[in-house]
Amino acid sequence: MSEPIITLTTDFGTNDNYAGIVKGIILSICRRADIVDITHSVPPFDIAAGRYVMETSYRAFPPGTIHIGVVDPGVGTKRKGLVIKTNKLVFVGPDNGLFSFLGRREISKIIEIRNSKYILPDASDTFHARDVFAPVAAYLALGVIPEEFGPAINDMIRIKPPGYRKTSQGIAGTVIYIDHFGNLVSSIKAERINAGGIVYLNGAKIGPIKKTFGAVKPGRPVAYINSFGYLEIAVSGGSGREYFRIEKPESAEILIARDKI
Amino acid sequence: MSEPIITLTTDFGTNDNYAGIVKGIILSICRRADIVDITHSVPPFDIAAGRYVMETSYRAFPPGTIHIGVVDPGVGTKRKGLVIKTNKLVFVGPDNGLFSFLGRREISKIIEIRNSKYILPDASDTFHARDVFAPVAAYLALGVIPEEFGPAINDMIRIKPPGYRKTSQGIAGTVIYIDHFGNLVSSIKAERINAGGIVYLNGAKIGPIKKTFGAVKPGRPVAYINSFGYLEIAVSGGSGREYFRIEKPESAEILIARDKI
Amino acid sequence: MSEPIITLTTDFGTNDNYAGIVKGIILSICRRADIVDITHSVPPFDIAAGRYVMETSYRAFPPGTIHIGVVDPGVGTKRKGLVIKTNKLVFVGPDNGLFSFLGRREISKIIEIRNSKYILPDASDTFHARDVFAPVAAYLALGVIPEEFGPAINDMIRIKPPGYRKTSQGIAGTVIYIDHFGNLVSSIKAERINAGGIVYLNGAKIGPIKKTFGAVKPGRPVAYINSFGYLEIAVSGGSGREYFRIEKPESAEILIARDKI
Repeated sequence: MSEPIITLTTDFGTNDNYAGIVKGIILSICRRADIVDITHSVPPFDIAAGRYVMETSYRAFPPGTIHIGVVDPGVGTKRKGLVIKTNKLVFVGPDNGLFSFLGRREISKIIEIRNSKYILPDASDTFHARDVFAPVAAYLALGVIPEEFGPAINDMIRIKPPGYRKTSQGIAGTVIYIDHFGNLVSSIKAERINAGGIVYLNGAKIGPIKKTFGAVKPGRPVAYINSFGYLEIAVSGGSGREYFRIEKPESAEILIARDKI
Repeated sequence: MSEPIITLTTDFGTNDNYAGIVKGIILSICRRADIVDITHSVPPFDIAAGRYVMETSYRAFPPGTIHIGVVDPGVGTKRKGLVIKTNKLVFVGPDNGLFSFLGRREISKIIEIRNSKYILPDASDTFHARDVFAPVAAYLALGVIPEEFGPAINDMIRIKPPGYRKTSQGIAGTVIYIDHFGNLVSSIKAERINAGGIVYLNGAKIGPIKKTFGAVKPGRPVAYINSFGYLEIAVSGGSGREYFRIEKPESAEILIARDKI
Repeated sequence: MSEPIITLTTDFGTNDNYAGIVKGIILSICRRADIVDITHSVPPFDIAAGRYVMETSYRAFPPGTIHIGVVDPGVGTKRKGLVIKTNKLVFVGPDNGLFSFLGRREISKIIEIRNSKYILPDASDTFHARDVFAPVAAYLALGVIPEEFGPAINDMIRIKPPGYRKTSQGIAGTVIYIDHFGNLVSSIKAERINAGGIVYLNGAKIGPIKKTFGAVKPGRPVAYINSFGYLEIAVSGGSGREYFRIEKPESAEILIARDKI
């Protein structure tokens, strides 16, 4: 049997030892686990950004992968810890909306983590990634079935994504994520887009949708469908964040107009 | 026999290729080593921060783990290179106080690295992580015993942690580490704390010690015992560093008063 | 047979999930690959910096290693994708100069990636690391020979490194890379340097070449040959970048004078 893969998506950053400690705990329980960092740089406490990052990552991994997600401002309060099973994958983390990209039909079981046998003794109230989620994931990797960790529950907390709305001019959405390059990911998915539309950001015309940022001259803004199926606005060889001075997601309006406004 | 784990704690940052090169050298010597990053973001040359990071990480790993620590402003000078053996673990790095969290009784042997057979030919004077510590750790992982690397020595350099002092009002300490979330770790350990005490930071009242940061409203400061046993001050859903405008450890006084001042 | 090593050198940063997704795709195809991050923090779109990082990393890895390099401002345009084979290693990435540190005699074969059998269906125009280079590297790790991926071509795009020039006073070069510590790497290689020379940076005297930065007092600037064989200028226990206020490579002149100017 090959090693199970356990991935980590957190807001821990990489300055501290938090992610390393989580790996130590996993390897102490399941020595053969193969741990992959997705990112530890979800903006602190930003559940919506964490959801976008997990939603656009998990399908890249093979069946059997165990995905740990920890963006957890409510750690140590009454919020539940979850094991969520789909056909092919398992997710482990807090019940706060982080996993609400998983559709109800995609999920086969949601377990509330309760069985103290599988969590560290004297678990802290501030570091459940180490004391709860890491050991649960490691025991899952060892073959413990989800039902062992606690009772099945009917649903989890879900948060509504920003999405889009129809206007008299076309489709309007917002920026939901800004990446390392300063690319601005919109809340509008490819399947909603009129092929002939013109893209505007806060009233500034970007133009029609191109294939890739290299399709325009360096320094020029461009709209295209990103590799996850979302409309994205970038500056070729530069930063859309800087060009449009947008520091926070959801502070910008993106409009796809059927016709010139 | 399962693969040995080798961890890395350094101040190399992740912008450059230094950590990757260290891994290449380890894997060139011991192909089956399993390398885990603890962090590469110890503040540059900050031995005290490196000591806190290592002290709070090493117990998370299974017996047999080899921990490399490199915060090394004196590389290429007369400072020694060390292999430190405890009952269950081995540490490899410079003799400059980085490992002084290890108590004398916890250590079974300290070896000064001298045997040129186990270091890279033409070792540089500026990158001992690559040329000395990586190969030594890799040979340890292959089963070479610590005594092979050089002579046993009696002790290593130790630096005194900031600690705490008793005052007429209670216990006073300082900030020793600021994490990614802006949480302020104090020099005061849980076992020194009067359960009924009130925590102050630079004269501002934080209040009694809570279980977790989620115990107060978002945006409010809170004191609690962190998951490593240190008193820590945070802002729920925010940054203690920004809230209290503390940019450097040791620039703040934390006081636990038995009574209201 | 032991697991093949696949390394990653990119400008993706670590804030997003891009590197994690690339790993998921590799592991989905070649479950036993051992993936090592060299760095994901090459400055965005900076092919020259990426070349320096790869040039100074690849020899640290054992024979058989597959090095993926992705600094790719032209993704989705006509630029080619390459598999480059040397005696001992394989490189995978875009044809834009990133691999021009490989000498013509070092290379045994250059293949243009064309065979759609080995790339993901519906490959995007903006994320070839995921859709092209990751699967190609994974199939190489499975044992597919380079010739399978497409036709052999004669050469790749090469960019000229800044290098050095002789002046009446000695050798003049520039800064080609600034690392995490603020150390300033020059374009001048050790073998070009007159042992008795005095180093100047933008007209300020640094002094003769020392063995290591610890050879001068903390806070003082110092020149030495770095561990990759390049002349480097640092400040002992500090930052050369801050001391000399140099924010961008190639904005500074380094001079090695045979005599005092």
